[in-house]
Amino acid sequence: MSKKIEVCLTPALIDLYDIEESIVVVIDILRATTSITYGIENGAEAIIPVANVEDCLNYADKGYLLAAERNGEVVAGYDFGNSPFSYTKEKVGGKTVVLTTTNGTKALHLAQKRAHQVVIGSFLNLDSLCAYLKNQNKNVLLLCAGWKDQFNLEDTLFAGAVVNQLRQKFEHFDDSSVAAEDLYLLAKDDLRKYLHKSSHSHRLAQLNIEEDVVFCLQLNICEAIPVLVGERLVKLA
Amino acid sequence: MSKKIEVCLTPALIDLYDIEESIVVVIDILRATTSITYGIENGAEAIIPVANVEDCLNYADKGYLLAAERNGEVVAGYDFGNSPFSYTKEKVGGKTVVLTTTNGTKALHLAQKRAHQVVIGSFLNLDSLCAYLKNQNKNVLLLCAGWKDQFNLEDTLFAGAVVNQLRQKFEHFDDSSVAAEDLYLLAKDDLRKYLHKSSHSHRLAQLNIEEDVVFCLQLNICEAIPVLVGERLVKLA
Repeated sequence: MSKKIEVCLTPALIDLYDIEESIVVVIDILRATTSITYGIENGAEAIIPVANVEDCLNYADKGYLLAAERNGEVVAGYDFGNSPFSYTKEKVGGKTVVLTTTNGTKALHLAQKRAHQVVIGSFLNLDSLCAYLKNQNKNVLLLCAGWKDQFNLEDTLFAGAVVNQLRQKFEHFDDSSVAAEDLYLLAKDDLRKYLHKSSHSHRLAQLNIEEDVVFCLQLNICEAIPVLVGERLVKLA
Repeated sequence: MSKKIEVCLTPALIDLYDIEESIVVVIDILRATTSITYGIENGAEAIIPVANVEDCLNYADKGYLLAAERNGEVVAGYDFGNSPFSYTKEKVGGKTVVLTTTNGTKALHLAQKRAHQVVIGSFLNLDSLCAYLKNQNKNVLLLCAGWKDQFNLEDTLFAGAVVNQLRQKFEHFDDSSVAAEDLYLLAKDDLRKYLHKSSHSHRLAQLNIEEDVVFCLQLNICEAIPVLVGERLVKLA
């Protein structure tokens, strides 16, 4: 089969793509998919993404850890938000985490409705993810969660990193995958510096999460690939 | 006033932008907005953009020139399509042209509903357009017509060229304007070569419009800025 890579730059465009036979990689670098990768790597039994803080509450009596964030801050009364530093072995090992985030959850649910398979990507598991995608006989859609349905740089740069690794094993690329790869090649020697250009990064800087941003740009410290099975993200076997 | 530039990468995202007080620049480089610029420069009295070939027919008894194209080809029975070579002084001078195109018209109509002003951009009038935008006390939204609501490279490169010229006179830039500018800087020494990477360009190559593509990438051969007044695109005074 002649394989295709496409990059969907925001969840608002997902309906334009034919993904019934594709693997969709959901990307929300700052910070949902980074934290999910790190949590699954660190032995979380499952992470359940939900759309609203209210949905999160439905799981309150099941002994799950509850993680809720809105506009970059932990919601009062919850165990934690989506800072990756909360997803350590000590905190999430053997546990199920219910997670709601501003953009990532929305992208996950949109993809799940139609895709052959939905997996999670972040710089933390870049090589492991790409090795997996190379060996599947499927098209790939890289779905950037963006920021409130708008394009953002960090998710696009990660999509470009994946395109760059998969180029030799795929034959068809759309315009957005060409653009994402070129932006990644421009930024790759110092991703943090490049992101200083970004409006989202400026906003995050105001929330004092510089440490999180640096964490989220680490390459290949994880091997786990989270995959969506029913409503739960679990480790791909 | 502290001015803002944003780039809307496809018409499908226009509702995310607050444009009531903005100048919207509609961009459909291959080939609608290039042909419109060239036609207005060459003395067309007005160009009326319509959404469908059927709408075009409503103007058949008014003595207007009718231009209709679908999927890159002239519709049988019409005067011409949207190849810029049809918009010469001899053909359009003093005439009104009714134009329907696949993507450009849609973007124009979406912008017109809400924007302060809608103007037309192309590489042909780049400097003239930028000089105008610098001197207005308004935010600017660069609206890429894209291809069937998807991102395309050529419109994004032009948006990046505008961002690059306006950078010193504006204070706020969204992530897509940063990306568009960087892609333009990467491509500017040989735009044609860069576009060979593009899926749209490959498709156009199959339609034998290489001459059109080369024409559309010419810089600053026009000074006219088409502006939408009611349903008509006319020369900005």
